[in-house]
Amino acid sequence: MTVEGPGGSGVKAMYGLLPGHRAVIEMAAASGLTLLSPEERNPLVTSTFGTGQLILDALDRGVVDISLAIGGSATNDGGMGCLRALGVRFLDGRGNELAGRGEDLAKVNSIDLEGVDRRIEATDFHVMCDVDNPLLGTRGAAAVFAPQKGANTSMVAELEEGMKSYAGVLARTFGTDVSCEPGMGASGGLGIAARLFLRAEVVPGIEHVLDLVGFDDLLAGADLCVTGEGHADSQSVHGKLVSGVACRCKRRGVPCVALVGAMDASATELLGYGVSAIVPTVIGCTSVADAMDHAEQNFTLAADRMFSLLRIGSGLVH
Amino acid sequence: MTVEGPGGSGVKAMYGLLPGHRAVIEMAAASGLTLLSPEERNPLVTSTFGTGQLILDALDRGVVDISLAIGGSATNDGGMGCLRALGVRFLDGRGNELAGRGEDLAKVNSIDLEGVDRRIEATDFHVMCDVDNPLLGTRGAAAVFAPQKGANTSMVAELEEGMKSYAGVLARTFGTDVSCEPGMGASGGLGIAARLFLRAEVVPGIEHVLDLVGFDDLLAGADLCVTGEGHADSQSVHGKLVSGVACRCKRRGVPCVALVGAMDASATELLGYGVSAIVPTVIGCTSVADAMDHAEQNFTLAADRMFSLLRIGSGLVH
Repeated sequence: MTVEGPGGSGVKAMYGLLPGHRAVIEMAAASGLTLLSPEERNPLVTSTFGTGQLILDALDRGVVDISLAIGGSATNDGGMGCLRALGVRFLDGRGNELAGRGEDLAKVNSIDLEGVDRRIEATDFHVMCDVDNPLLGTRGAAAVFAPQKGANTSMVAELEEGMKSYAGVLARTFGTDVSCEPGMGASGGLGIAARLFLRAEVVPGIEHVLDLVGFDDLLAGADLCVTGEGHADSQSVHGKLVSGVACRCKRRGVPCVALVGAMDASATELLGYGVSAIVPTVIGCTSVADAMDHAEQNFTLAADRMFSLLRIGSGLVH
Repeated sequence: MTVEGPGGSGVKAMYGLLPGHRAVIEMAAASGLTLLSPEERNPLVTSTFGTGQLILDALDRGVVDISLAIGGSATNDGGMGCLRALGVRFLDGRGNELAGRGEDLAKVNSIDLEGVDRRIEATDFHVMCDVDNPLLGTRGAAAVFAPQKGANTSMVAELEEGMKSYAGVLARTFGTDVSCEPGMGASGGLGIAARLFLRAEVVPGIEHVLDLVGFDDLLAGADLCVTGEGHADSQSVHGKLVSGVACRCKRRGVPCVALVGAMDASATELLGYGVSAIVPTVIGCTSVADAMDHAEQNFTLAADRMFSLLRIGSGLVH
């Protein structure tokens, strides 16, 4: 469907529908950084409105359980854009409605929840979040993430001031200050917005995805699990896909092999997290660009040798 | 032991003694190209004399079976240096003995076999040779190999002329012209010298080495054979180590895995020659120099993942 992109122009965005009236929505599909050219990136004016439109569409289709993946956003609007699409009104000191962009954060004086979509209350929201940053301060949304979204030093300062003021209004409105909870600063404050307005539970992304697809059931009776990622290193153990998958395999006693584009020697740390073997797909000394050009060939070769070794092994005495 | 190097100065050279009064001598250990700096390389003056000294030493130790690995030579002396060390005298038109270097080839008028070491007749010689070049012509010793030994165009022409004349003297002396047989041009003509003077049989290197170490006996009862080389490509099937080893494994039904530094996709041709799987050791996108710097780490990682996959496989139903 077409929604409002982070910069205001329309973008085509998809989301997933699962059995049981469930949906998986990726905020970056509607409001992601990659939807903007480097020149267009400006967290003072970008908006999460399109993400709200995706949620609205899901509600229109009868969805009652929404998993919202946040990360990779182009925005620092405190989630106001998203909430406006769902009927929330952000008002300045004179009662005028604001556009709900980053530059409006400091102007928010009160929040009108009167027109909020009633279906939200009956919907379960899960925010999948892989960062633990709070809303404010040196580890907060503006300081850590705004620079990569196009903010210079003075813009970061303006956004931080605005977010501080906005956090105060939120605390007053909801009677609780959760701004220092982990994940509240994710996606330019969409984390705290989902937590308060949508009453979302904030969950680690990989664990939630594995639950969504019923991974444990799929694993039952499996002889082997093959997973993978682009580059494996010591970061791979920190709540990322491979370690998440491997951890569940270990619990079930299913061997887990990771096919990876490339690896650092430090990736062997994964072997302590249930990964039985890491198989890099690169076959020679070359550039990243060349390796990417031959990714399909190299993954095929790697799969071939992996299964060849498994087959040889299956003929050996245990 | 210390022998005369290819350029005339002494070099330390080793050779191997095997049970059964056998020896394995590598000509490059005494007369190899890498023993000379690039400036010293000049096939008009280099000599295989040191190789002859190694043979002599082996005979002194009671060896009766010598495998001579030729290849990587710095020389184009028609094997005269080696033979002089064993008592052969090369004479010019006036009956004066020549130094037996590349520049002397054209001057050889007759060959005096009177003083040749008598033990040679009672010794079996095997020349291990991986090239099939004849002695003369566009695929001959001078044309193909002399340039990499330091010869410029006019030197190549001089060496070719000299070798042609030398071949005539050999044919006259032995009553047979074998100069066009494969391998005669190996190591600057040491091939033909060994063939005629030492009555050596010329054999493919890998097959002979595998016989020498009793490879087939070692393979009996083995579950798996692990071999390897620096870089695997479509050339690897042409009488090189991996294909030689794999071929014997295939005959015995033993799975054979090749651990290689790096590979081209074309190396999969080896899979038709008895190699069950090729495991490259590189783990990321990098330079050859960096890969070599981390060779030990990378081979260890590769061995780890290979045996991990074999172990996983051994737990799977066949």
